Amino acid sequence: MRKGYYMIRQAVYHKSDVPFAYPLNKDELHIVLRTASSDIKKCYIFYRDRYDWMGKFKVKEMFLTQSNELFDYYETTIKLNKKFAYFFYLISNRNEKVYYTESGFYQRRPENSFHGFFQYPYICDMDVFFAPKWTSDCIVYQIFPDRFNNGDKSNDPENVRPWGEKPESTTFFGGDIQGIIDKVEYLKDLGINAIYMTPIFLSPSTHKYNTTDYYKIDPHFGDTHKAKELIDKCHKNGIRVIFDAVFNHCGYDFFAFQDVIKNGKDSKYWDWFNIYEWPIKTTPIPSYEAFADHEWRMPKLMTKNPDVQEYLLNVAEYWIKEVDIDGWRLDVANEIDHHFWRRFREIVKKAKHDAIIVGEVMHDASPWLYGDQFDSVMNYPFKNALVDFFAKRRIDAKRFNTIITEHLMRHMDGVNRAMLNLIGSHDTERFLTMCNGMVVRMKLALVFQFTYIGVPYIYYGDEVGMVGGYDPDCRRCMIWNEEKQNLKLFNFYKTLISLRKENEELRYGTYKTLYARDGIISFKREYKGKSIIVIINDSSKEHSILLNGVQGKLDILGMGKIKIRGKIVSLEPNCAYILK
Amino acid sequence: MRKGYYMIRQAVYHKSDVPFAYPLNKDELHIVLRTASSDIKKCYIFYRDRYDWMGKFKVKEMFLTQSNELFDYYETTIKLNKKFAYFFYLISNRNEKVYYTESGFYQRRPENSFHGFFQYPYICDMDVFFAPKWTSDCIVYQIFPDRFNNGDKSNDPENVRPWGEKPESTTFFGGDIQGIIDKVEYLKDLGINAIYMTPIFLSPSTHKYNTTDYYKIDPHFGDTHKAKELIDKCHKNGIRVIFDAVFNHCGYDFFAFQDVIKNGKDSKYWDWFNIYEWPIKTTPIPSYEAFADHEWRMPKLMTKNPDVQEYLLNVAEYWIKEVDIDGWRLDVANEIDHHFWRRFREIVKKAKHDAIIVGEVMHDASPWLYGDQFDSVMNYPFKNALVDFFAKRRIDAKRFNTIITEHLMRHMDGVNRAMLNLIGSHDTERFLTMCNGMVVRMKLALVFQFTYIGVPYIYYGDEVGMVGGYDPDCRRCMIWNEEKQNLKLFNFYKTLISLRKENEELRYGTYKTLYARDGIISFKREYKGKSIIVIINDSSKEHSILLNGVQGKLDILGMGKIKIRGKIVSLEPNCAYILK
Repeated sequence: MRKGYYMIRQAVYHKSDVPFAYPLNKDELHIVLRTASSDIKKCYIFYRDRYDWMGKFKVKEMFLTQSNELFDYYETTIKLNKKFAYFFYLISNRNEKVYYTESGFYQRRPENSFHGFFQYPYICDMDVFFAPKWTSDCIVYQIFPDRFNNGDKSNDPENVRPWGEKPESTTFFGGDIQGIIDKVEYLKDLGINAIYMTPIFLSPSTHKYNTTDYYKIDPHFGDTHKAKELIDKCHKNGIRVIFDAVFNHCGYDFFAFQDVIKNGKDSKYWDWFNIYEWPIKTTPIPSYEAFADHEWRMPKLMTKNPDVQEYLLNVAEYWIKEVDIDGWRLDVANEIDHHFWRRFREIVKKAKHDAIIVGEVMHDASPWLYGDQFDSVMNYPFKNALVDFFAKRRIDAKRFNTIITEHLMRHMDGVNRAMLNLIGSHDTERFLTMCNGMVVRMKLALVFQFTYIGVPYIYYGDEVGMVGGYDPDCRRCMIWNEEKQNLKLFNFYKTLISLRKENEELRYGTYKTLYARDGIISFKREYKGKSIIVIINDSSKEHSILLNGVQGKLDILGMGKIKIRGKIVSLEPNCAYILK
Repeated sequence: MRKGYYMIRQAVYHKSDVPFAYPLNKDELHIVLRTASSDIKKCYIFYRDRYDWMGKFKVKEMFLTQSNELFDYYETTIKLNKKFAYFFYLISNRNEKVYYTESGFYQRRPENSFHGFFQYPYICDMDVFFAPKWTSDCIVYQIFPDRFNNGDKSNDPENVRPWGEKPESTTFFGGDIQGIIDKVEYLKDLGINAIYMTPIFLSPSTHKYNTTDYYKIDPHFGDTHKAKELIDKCHKNGIRVIFDAVFNHCGYDFFAFQDVIKNGKDSKYWDWFNIYEWPIKTTPIPSYEAFADHEWRMPKLMTKNPDVQEYLLNVAEYWIKEVDIDGWRLDVANEIDHHFWRRFREIVKKAKHDAIIVGEVMHDASPWLYGDQFDSVMNYPFKNALVDFFAKRRIDAKRFNTIITEHLMRHMDGVNRAMLNLIGSHDTERFLTMCNGMVVRMKLALVFQFTYIGVPYIYYGDEVGMVGGYDPDCRRCMIWNEEKQNLKLFNFYKTLISLRKENEELRYGTYKTLYARDGIISFKREYKGKSIIVIINDSSKEHSILLNGVQGKLDILGMGKIKIRGKIVSLEPNCAYILK
């Protein structure tokens, strides 16, 4: 970017609100200031406690935490004795020095009585965001129950197909809760400590995203007792369990909708839905508001209706109390009003204070992540970046770093640490398929995933090298035959999981990019004075790069050879290193 | 600003959330894109309805609406058939053409299946923001009851002082509700159509910001019956009435706090407050959390406590139902949690759908104005800008335009139209005093205030030329003796109010800056094909400027002479014009 005489003022930004200012606790405020990339030299915050009208300002230097093609980010944490801060910034480069306030830039230092200070008016307990503490230590495993393991043949659907056959969108394979119970040891051996299951409530489909009864486990999967058994066994093995809530819409067979079909306008549920025309038609186009594709006939639930709110919020509370789930993943969360999700958060956190709330929002999810709604989302922008850089190699390391760090700075640190960093799901092609089968590319992506900030996320079967295109192909039956599993990949997963568990820098540390070009991404994770440096050569060429801070470090991953001579690091092609 | 070969990418910004994307109604989405000032030539939005996976993108040109020293803003409204939009931008200048998406800039047009599109996922009815419709037509008059008019001497406090004496912070002058009732004709003649009264509930102080009883009108002011009489008379005269709610803290004498003082930890109200140490001390420093200055001894109310929430929300509802008030102004609104204000909005809007909610937030108030909390705030940043430009002439027109338009773009259009655009209040020096008594400077500011977007706001007595320094001096007794009133100024107010009422461009129109330098600010208000151009020469020099669109227009203000020859407009020193 341009390095001119004057700072690029348009790049300089702070707002006294999430994610540029937010409380970490009752008296500490985290502060972020953005500038253009490589544009400034120093940045200081001047701050003062509240109502100390003529008091002196304290001064603290801000430190560069992220840098990319466009922006630099400076951060610090200030301690407030009285929960309130007035503040402004002093920013300088070689040629000028400016004061930055809420009402713009000034050449002179603002007077004490100045009316344009930034202000964080009060740290309200109610507004302090905490994701559940366990998310920092978490590794999630996603299960699509019909396809994971058939543990009880007696509850199979009539038309069940042989395990391993190519799936169609309506195929049943008989996977069930007993099947998951039988594989808890497998999951424990792999090293994950949370599972997220796609829906398991009564529904005629194989994916069960069209719920018939929110209070009933689908009998082809088991029953409430069986669900409790799974959760108890998981809990005993240190594994948390997350259910899937489909609250945006229901199945065609949902009792309230069927009542409306039967009784028309006289149904007491008529306003749970948005009916365009009476009597209700389903074909050729539904005469009611339906989610996404008309053919699915799934009625949109009117969450603006207080009765619908009560019904769904009771469901949310019920399963926490009944079977002790550890959180909810929220389907199509971005098509439901914020008002509903705020109520949802209150109910869920009251029922279980450390339950996690994960939204399905595939784009920029920040409007749901200001602290009042979700703790986390399924991090699709992360997946997209990894696909583009590692699987398809269609963006360079510079661009990858920009996308990743810009995404990081959109959210509070606590949110980033709770993010479900997936590389694939039941709604995407499998990562290995996107790598065109090149396992090494997937391995490089995995190194990034398991050493980055946030929750590493495994879509069932990825760990044994399963492939598959878009739905329904990405929902093939789990491969249990070890001869057909990629055991090298499985062990690579286990290695990464162990390294993450053994090194708190990877779980709790800061993230800072050290190098991002020529297909190479390198970054440092730092925690309590200890640091780990990760280097990934996502290119087919050998490279020697200059890197600070690598002296004396050893590679604890062992994927390939590395030579460190002073600051010069020589890397093998298509190889990653974790230096400690 | 720099005009280089490449666009200043760091300035280009959109986010699919308030205030850059927000629904105007069930199927229209308002869209804003920011770029560096004078940096680009054209901007288009490409958008597509939801789930039309392979559908064609529609294209719409965006138009420049605001421009200042730093940024240009482009806006448009797109119509969505299915409440959901995928979109990206095409931006061009003389030398390059780039596509701008949620994941950054691209040289090539994103494919239809591209995963980095901006998305507005669904227009939820619950999330559509509406300020009360009447705010666009509103002119507010603020009354400080003890100082406005004494209509009933029988209810005067014992120690009442003669009307017009210099006030101290504890002086009582005997103003009351009957006094306001007696002056409704005066207010109607002036032309205002809403009054906001500082607190009138039981309290030992003259300002009554330390409430003793939220359910009782202070007997020195009147009683509930008298309040109802005032409101009825106001309503009959087309005047709305806004009460002041002090929910951040209560008075020392508030029953719950007195109960805690008496019963200590055994009080059932002990957790309505934040008690640091038992038994409670008041001196030298209170052993409980107190608002602002310790000497005021006002206990902070713990709005995180559900009982406190219920109590205060009942108060909010009670006065709407009991005396039919038209809204609440919320004292120290920025020190109470967002959660409380969201509940407050629900309760208030349910009790009276078009009640206005106005926060007292003196700095950037956008965190309270995303649509889920307030409709409006007391617009202190507006006041500050007018003080700096018109009263003190310490910033130039360019800077003034930057501050004003940056502030405008922080909020949704509906919020801007509900903003209480004050130039002074009971918490500031009076504007005329800040003008150092120069009435003409105040007149120029008034022209801006009454022709700008938002609610013009009169602090009692400003209209007759009252002066006064900071509290308590700005709270002098209203001057009713016409010989001591500045009747010319009063008539200037009446003229401006009439012009605003007669010209819907001034009430409903768009705002666009036409000229901002050499002490001159000019802008256009446009509505349904009609337009008004305002020119204010806030300098002591004659000026001839080049201005488009003035041909054939006539000055409807009549403050001074103007010559229009083609595009050349000659202005008198210290003079404003409203051209129609």
